[in-house]
Amino acid sequence: MDLIQSLASVELLLTDCLANREPQGLYKPSAYAMDVGGKRLRPQLVLLGNYLFGGSVEDAIPAAASVEMFHNFTLLHDDIMDNAPTRRGKASVWVEFGTNTAILSGDVMMMIAFSVLTKGPSFHQLAQCLTECGILVCEGQQLDMDFEKRNDVSIEEYLHMIEQKTAVLLAASLKMGAITANAPVQEIEKIYKAGVFLGIGFQLQDDILDVFGDSVKVGKQTGGDIIADKKTYLLIKALELAKGEVLNTLMYHIEAAHFNPEEKVRAVKEIYNQLQIKDLASRKMKQYFDQGLEIIKNLDVPSQRKELLVAFFEQLIQREY
Amino acid sequence: MDLIQSLASVELLLTDCLANREPQGLYKPSAYAMDVGGKRLRPQLVLLGNYLFGGSVEDAIPAAASVEMFHNFTLLHDDIMDNAPTRRGKASVWVEFGTNTAILSGDVMMMIAFSVLTKGPSFHQLAQCLTECGILVCEGQQLDMDFEKRNDVSIEEYLHMIEQKTAVLLAASLKMGAITANAPVQEIEKIYKAGVFLGIGFQLQDDILDVFGDSVKVGKQTGGDIIADKKTYLLIKALELAKGEVLNTLMYHIEAAHFNPEEKVRAVKEIYNQLQIKDLASRKMKQYFDQGLEIIKNLDVPSQRKELLVAFFEQLIQREY
Repeated sequence: MDLIQSLASVELLLTDCLANREPQGLYKPSAYAMDVGGKRLRPQLVLLGNYLFGGSVEDAIPAAASVEMFHNFTLLHDDIMDNAPTRRGKASVWVEFGTNTAILSGDVMMMIAFSVLTKGPSFHQLAQCLTECGILVCEGQQLDMDFEKRNDVSIEEYLHMIEQKTAVLLAASLKMGAITANAPVQEIEKIYKAGVFLGIGFQLQDDILDVFGDSVKVGKQTGGDIIADKKTYLLIKALELAKGEVLNTLMYHIEAAHFNPEEKVRAVKEIYNQLQIKDLASRKMKQYFDQGLEIIKNLDVPSQRKELLVAFFEQLIQREY
Repeated sequence: MDLIQSLASVELLLTDCLANREPQGLYKPSAYAMDVGGKRLRPQLVLLGNYLFGGSVEDAIPAAASVEMFHNFTLLHDDIMDNAPTRRGKASVWVEFGTNTAILSGDVMMMIAFSVLTKGPSFHQLAQCLTECGILVCEGQQLDMDFEKRNDVSIEEYLHMIEQKTAVLLAASLKMGAITANAPVQEIEKIYKAGVFLGIGFQLQDDILDVFGDSVKVGKQTGGDIIADKKTYLLIKALELAKGEVLNTLMYHIEAAHFNPEEKVRAVKEIYNQLQIKDLASRKMKQYFDQGLEIIKNLDVPSQRKELLVAFFEQLIQREY
């Protein structure tokens, strides 16, 4: 499979979905959101899921465009809810076009995500998968917002939240690819399960990079999660392990209403280092990646087809941004 | 068909869709939105569309629940965009639960609207219809917001806007009912077209009732459209017909940044009366209703099946709220 060429077809379809439509007030913000870029990870997973089961790549293009459109709809609405002023270094849609337009452009992108699916085969199964996944993503985002107000989030609750908010859409991408290749039902369920493990690993890695990544490579100032008191695996683990003076210092920084952001990031990072949080988080992340890869390696498909997907994830594990 | 009993089944399904789901922070606002009530016009149209073509009513229940869930999702997001503090006499969802929760609850309701469809037959056709319609509804809402900033909206533009914002979902409801009855394709297209005419008539009637309705029967203070300078058929027609001093007075009231709402409503209503706007609007409304009913009367189905739908619309035309 020529991944680059297939991704180009996905981009064409994405552009096409939003082109020549009126009113401009609705579609310009949607096109802006799609233009901001990103790794196009989910379309790649759809294509790889299709390839894995020997599907015809053209059948996977609409599903690949659909998940990317859907993902960007969630980012657009999340940025409003999180009051996030930028996305990948550019002004967020709500900052650039206003909140009302951002809500509505997100809505239409969600509906276009379903509409694109009608351009390919297996509409029923694909739409059902995207719907079920979409409901879980909303639930995950609500949990994430609920957790902001709590200091007693457990590791288990956190893992459940990122499973819903992030992992299921990555898993659904692989599953949708497999569906477009008419994979057997039990193999489709296996690849979905693998995707959930890999997706949780991916989010844990995101959490690690947000604190310990190279800000130039990541493309944004690191430490954002610390500044926002996000209940990531790192913070929850630190709260679990810290004792005495260290715990007091950590709580002081979390609860301070007024603080110097750089100082806060430096202090919390120092505690993370003391408690070897990075190692613990990396180990957990690796566990999830390993569990996901193990399932893929045991799938009932020719081994050279697995290699591409395994290599893809191994590269992802090495990512620095 | 026992419409009352079927509607009760729709209500049960609607409650069921949102029950026993977590997190509560997401589903309580959705249930609140559905509980606010309303005429359940769209589910009735689905059921009537199914009956018209001799379908089995159970097949239409999921589609009926789906369009009502979808409709309430649009109301929920519209209330945020329009900054509307109340809905049917109760606090809007965004006022009661906050804007972020309102955005997300709307999103999940939209996905549940699709998910409910999987509980019945003809998923592919129904989901395609709802998707296409949903895109048009978003476009209509954007046009409505765009028109707020303009004083030169033409009657034609206005009719196009209400067709997209309101009429297509009513039309899609009839169409989805027909689909669940496996109606022939050309009859499905006819009933959709009839629904568009009837839907435009319905919105024109809404505009008339907003100004000339009995506030007790309508359940809200009348004149809201006048206060908000909404470019309704009535205002556009008045701007078209008013000359000299009358036009100056009308423009003065539209452009005044500070005003006494009661005084503004009284003054604009007086101009409407002078220009016989109510008659003109009622005539236009009746034209649309007649065109819609004409199509229904010519459908290739047993005449006693048409009677229920015709009676339903004739009752709707008489409505006072």
